[in-house]
Amino acid sequence: MPTPKEHVFLKALRREPTDYTPIWLMRQAGRYLPEYNATRKRAGNFLALCKTPELACEVTLQPLDRFPLDAAILFSDILTVPDAMGLGLYFAEGEGPKFERPVRDEAAVAKLAAPDPSAELRYVMDAVRTIRGALADRVPLIGFSGSPFTLACYMVEGGGSDDFRAIKTMLYARPDLLHRILAVNATAVADYLNAQIEAGAQTVMIFDSWGGVLADGAYQAFSLDYLRTVVSKLTRHRVEADGTKADVPVIVFTKGGGPWLEQIADIGCDAVGLDWTIGLGRARDRIGARCALQGNLDPMVLMAGPDQVRAEAIRLLDDHGAPRTGHGHVFNLGHGISQFTPPDNVAALVETVHSHSRRLRTAL
Amino acid sequence: MPTPKEHVFLKALRREPTDYTPIWLMRQAGRYLPEYNATRKRAGNFLALCKTPELACEVTLQPLDRFPLDAAILFSDILTVPDAMGLGLYFAEGEGPKFERPVRDEAAVAKLAAPDPSAELRYVMDAVRTIRGALADRVPLIGFSGSPFTLACYMVEGGGSDDFRAIKTMLYARPDLLHRILAVNATAVADYLNAQIEAGAQTVMIFDSWGGVLADGAYQAFSLDYLRTVVSKLTRHRVEADGTKADVPVIVFTKGGGPWLEQIADIGCDAVGLDWTIGLGRARDRIGARCALQGNLDPMVLMAGPDQVRAEAIRLLDDHGAPRTGHGHVFNLGHGISQFTPPDNVAALVETVHSHSRRLRTAL
Repeated sequence: MPTPKEHVFLKALRREPTDYTPIWLMRQAGRYLPEYNATRKRAGNFLALCKTPELACEVTLQPLDRFPLDAAILFSDILTVPDAMGLGLYFAEGEGPKFERPVRDEAAVAKLAAPDPSAELRYVMDAVRTIRGALADRVPLIGFSGSPFTLACYMVEGGGSDDFRAIKTMLYARPDLLHRILAVNATAVADYLNAQIEAGAQTVMIFDSWGGVLADGAYQAFSLDYLRTVVSKLTRHRVEADGTKADVPVIVFTKGGGPWLEQIADIGCDAVGLDWTIGLGRARDRIGARCALQGNLDPMVLMAGPDQVRAEAIRLLDDHGAPRTGHGHVFNLGHGISQFTPPDNVAALVETVHSHSRRLRTAL
Repeated sequence: MPTPKEHVFLKALRREPTDYTPIWLMRQAGRYLPEYNATRKRAGNFLALCKTPELACEVTLQPLDRFPLDAAILFSDILTVPDAMGLGLYFAEGEGPKFERPVRDEAAVAKLAAPDPSAELRYVMDAVRTIRGALADRVPLIGFSGSPFTLACYMVEGGGSDDFRAIKTMLYARPDLLHRILAVNATAVADYLNAQIEAGAQTVMIFDSWGGVLADGAYQAFSLDYLRTVVSKLTRHRVEADGTKADVPVIVFTKGGGPWLEQIADIGCDAVGLDWTIGLGRARDRIGARCALQGNLDPMVLMAGPDQVRAEAIRLLDDHGAPRTGHGHVFNLGHGISQFTPPDNVAALVETVHSHSRRLRTAL
């Protein structure tokens, strides 16, 4: 059994040479897999699935049993933290997540406090421990959280949004209030991720799903600065059960963050996640050896046939080129996998990334 | 009365020196104005408003009576062209636009043909002529169209979309079909804009609202190439009623087009529209004197108070700096104005852009 240090996924994040490009997929445990839908049905609903560690563990491992993916990611929801703050998360049938008590005024902001991850969020840490045990070091486990700004979007809007009117009105009219929410969120996210690391997460990823809706300038002040705070507070190593010490890499992903890649790479993270609007070669030119890169296939490529999937994966790998010294690349989608994805296309993708990236290295 | 050449809006697009920065707002004739809602109610519904030249003229002029804006834009819908292709445009109450007959397969694609703008789209040309008459050269009139790719999104999806699954599936699985749609659309858009120019439009703008959802590579092949085709087919001048000849500038706006600004600036347009994710100064550094720029305030700034609106407008103008030789700037939002905008904030914005941009020039 390999020690954690030898996992190709972790080596790529540390920008060490690897024999091939590792791959995992955002939302790889999800509705495109019939076995996931069966477990979810058994759980009753999505939140119950998240809050039952054995079931969260079961779905986390499902994609690994189908595909030779190089990492597992904790199955959980992005809104566990504001839920633990008492905002009343719920899922209306056929709609996205909603909060019963959105944070819209001074009084609501004053009441916010970072939850204790070992209490209100204990079910998440239990899931991390359960998954680590079940994985038995087959592949590393990624923990995650939403970013302070992304959590604030849901907290202020009370759910998803098309125009982000509520949070942007607060941003421009009452920036003091939004900064207070974001400061609480930054503490909460750092505590939450540190608890996941302590429970067994071997990498953590921060999903800034909505930072890309901000104007230049506002992004830096209301999303990036708080990402930097979170990263600075993270424990970047853990001690494994066998006493070995391991680094814990940090991945930061702002969807739509293309304009600010250099600035994201400068906040102290190990890897920058990319969506599909940026060419991978171009992103590498901009970032150089400062960070590993993760991404960035359009998930909709997986709607075509296996041949097209292979061609697009090869195009993307060729665009990056075989990683040079100090260049780590983790293959991923630029956003979560669609529920309509044929699983056979995922198999073709994983196989192609592994085989073509080996070929690229041989050709050097 | 000024000749068309002297309008500050047209001078800025031609990158000639101006005394101040001109401003207009995307969707400036719209639901945030009570007088618009009154006219729309009189029309019965949105499509009737678009298809009745006198009413389209009435709403086009409404914002000019309230604010000293520097240009008018034809009031119309972005989907007039596919509607004229026979796809059956309709608006379900409380929903976005939909097509009764989306273009999903080989047979539907084979049937597509560019409509005759003087027949099926005659109501648009009548509106342009009516508006030009009513404007009496107060400010220039902008004509517009959706881009070939943006029209294709609606045509293939059958309406709006969150994930663009239908069109991206076609793009990756059957690129030949999508290219055929886009070739027809490029002809249709060029014919449509040329007819608007002939009818009186003094500038034309192409709205590529959805090009930004494409992956790098796909954007160039499926949106930018067809924008280039349209621009190359446009009549770039018109003869006014008094016999004077006038250039007709072309503005191209890909929302989310930040990664590709240099490439957009190279397709032969006079101005590049910008959304708010790109700093205006940075965009100017990237584009230099190749094109005028149009944009790019986040429309949600207008949700705050007049003081914040003024501060953000000043910040944006300062970021660009007083236009140097060959640098034209037209102030605008980075997207359409929200229906929830208080009209007083628009007044504050227009006043600030005019007065602060005069100050910037004096300070040179």
